[in-house]
Amino acid sequence: MKRRRILQMGAAMAGGLLARGEASARDLGRPLGPYGERSPFEKAVRWRRESKTPEAGSSFSPLADSNGIITPSSLHYERHHAGIPNIDPATHRLVIQGMVERPLQLTVAEIKRLPSLSRILLVECGGNSGSEWAATTGATVQRSHGLASCSEWTGVSLRLLLEEVGVKPGASWIIAEGADAGRYQRSIPLAKALDDMILAYGQNGESIRPEQGYPLRLLLPGWEGATHVKWLQRIVVTDRPYQSRDETSKYTDLMPDGKARQFTFAMEAKSVITYPSGGQNLPGPGQYELTGLAWSGRGKVERVDITTDGGRNWQPARLQEPVLPLAFVRFRMPWKWDGREAVIASRCTDATGYEQPSRESLIAVRGVNSGFHYNGIKLWKVAADGNVTNVEV
Amino acid sequence: MKRRRILQMGAAMAGGLLARGEASARDLGRPLGPYGERSPFEKAVRWRRESKTPEAGSSFSPLADSNGIITPSSLHYERHHAGIPNIDPATHRLVIQGMVERPLQLTVAEIKRLPSLSRILLVECGGNSGSEWAATTGATVQRSHGLASCSEWTGVSLRLLLEEVGVKPGASWIIAEGADAGRYQRSIPLAKALDDMILAYGQNGESIRPEQGYPLRLLLPGWEGATHVKWLQRIVVTDRPYQSRDETSKYTDLMPDGKARQFTFAMEAKSVITYPSGGQNLPGPGQYELTGLAWSGRGKVERVDITTDGGRNWQPARLQEPVLPLAFVRFRMPWKWDGREAVIASRCTDATGYEQPSRESLIAVRGVNSGFHYNGIKLWKVAADGNVTNVEV
Repeated sequence: MKRRRILQMGAAMAGGLLARGEASARDLGRPLGPYGERSPFEKAVRWRRESKTPEAGSSFSPLADSNGIITPSSLHYERHHAGIPNIDPATHRLVIQGMVERPLQLTVAEIKRLPSLSRILLVECGGNSGSEWAATTGATVQRSHGLASCSEWTGVSLRLLLEEVGVKPGASWIIAEGADAGRYQRSIPLAKALDDMILAYGQNGESIRPEQGYPLRLLLPGWEGATHVKWLQRIVVTDRPYQSRDETSKYTDLMPDGKARQFTFAMEAKSVITYPSGGQNLPGPGQYELTGLAWSGRGKVERVDITTDGGRNWQPARLQEPVLPLAFVRFRMPWKWDGREAVIASRCTDATGYEQPSRESLIAVRGVNSGFHYNGIKLWKVAADGNVTNVEV
Repeated sequence: MKRRRILQMGAAMAGGLLARGEASARDLGRPLGPYGERSPFEKAVRWRRESKTPEAGSSFSPLADSNGIITPSSLHYERHHAGIPNIDPATHRLVIQGMVERPLQLTVAEIKRLPSLSRILLVECGGNSGSEWAATTGATVQRSHGLASCSEWTGVSLRLLLEEVGVKPGASWIIAEGADAGRYQRSIPLAKALDDMILAYGQNGESIRPEQGYPLRLLLPGWEGATHVKWLQRIVVTDRPYQSRDETSKYTDLMPDGKARQFTFAMEAKSVITYPSGGQNLPGPGQYELTGLAWSGRGKVERVDITTDGGRNWQPARLQEPVLPLAFVRFRMPWKWDGREAVIASRCTDATGYEQPSRESLIAVRGVNSGFHYNGIKLWKVAADGNVTNVEV
């Protein structure tokens, strides 16, 4: 057997400890249970800015505590416009109507009988990393990038349902409507609906969580989260977008020339180091593993590079297999920290050849009032005392 | 656009329903929350046989309610011998000792700093499907196959740690010990430890759940669950197995000749239809999707075949991508039920060419007192009234 000792931990134990665990009796533990909870020692929670309207807002996934690519459903980010409705799946209905030959009303049970599929897919809010447009960027990875999460979703191909109802000639959009108090509405190009959209009822092996759209939500692989309409109750096939409140008052990107981009659906390639990240502390010089998450709304992540010297040099990170398109990709790179100040960052390149831009080059094109679709490189500063912070810009 | 209408649902809506959802005001929903819970309408729970010692027993994952390949951590099967300890990760230690050059003691924080990896892996109890040896087999898929679950696990390569401590010449086994009240112990061949074992701390994106070994457990890809020692506190490198209580009083397979097989680690290829399965009811003749789970402890699932006529004819099922080795694989096949009694089953073939056996051919070799490692084909009977039951044997 090889003796690599790449860790050089050197923490040899005292001999007295060898007998550890043998001496004292221990209490019998807790019994088996019907539905488990996490350890009371685990404290990670979604974070939200204090506001008078917690029914309308965002809460951020604690990515600093993440590992792997699956986000626990309990910690999936939230973005609601009128609170989380409490829907009884036995009475909920989905209506498909408009420019269709055979309008259809379906129960949840009927939908669950249909041919199904599962995909591990990222959902990212169009407003994720909105903090990064500002002069003072997000202080932690939860606040800067926590409006993105990744789950295994299960449901029905929307194309299959549209073939069932028969789309009439001339149709080019669908309008998706939620059953929340505000009847959230988004216009979606019919081409996407016929491509890869999923009418989902499952998330991470059980039913979708209430705050993720229970019992039904749309999944639009790679597109901004706000189009993944939750608590779905209606699809109207049309020949034009509705210009609804929810796609005009928000989710448009103001450009430097005063015009706003609308219907910017695909999320661009992006990545961020989750460890070490803002608010964490390295206990001392030595061997570490840099790790983080990368993704692209345009397909597979091709590579992730990491800098530990503020962008002068970049080295390729290792990507965890399986690398799935339109899903989180976990990357890792060993790093020997010498105890001096260091600025670290990751940069994602996707299969289209697109490379995640620096904050500066993104702002040069988009200005600072764009609000949505920020995907610049995120720098973290490791100070000599091991404290990790965002970088003043 | 093609008009396939494979569903032939024909549930055209009444015109009056088109205006549904427009009429009544709705209450503002619940606000954002720190850590989510499932809908109160969802009732699936782990099931366990009533006993006087719920600290020592098994509880079964509700596979009939599963979708995709990830098992929710809250519903991952349990098998405990002395209850679930409540461990503070700040004080927990892992000791590696025995035939090593540099014994080592590690904190959980130190382990989390090490190079890490993530894998989606099945864990199956060696006693899963033990009900199937009997004349009356398991009545539901939860009771017959619910001691298997699949998660994304994150941790450290055990090989890396063994290279750090330096295994002495002549060593051939490791002894893994848990921190539960019974100090559960299992002997594991060193070759497996140097191959693909994982010292895991993460499950489905957060810390391992208490009932799955918080804060540390071993993962032995493809091997019986009882070797995946939970609440891991010690690894002893040795030149022989310990013949511990936990590997002699249980987890040996009694053969027809009166001898018992021991250290039968790898779980053989297996599959089961989860929908429709025992205890469910088909609401009437028509189009359905048969779906279920397949896996093999010896590598990738190569194919799954389905019969709907009691084994006379078999058709290939569609396997959901990505098909990952040593993980659950979700399979699906459309089925038009004509309303007559039908006996359905699935059969898994793995990449080694091994084909899941019938119950009869398995028993011909192993007898009925084997107790562990049952992997026979599971038949479900769909009666003319739509009720699904196990098949009398």
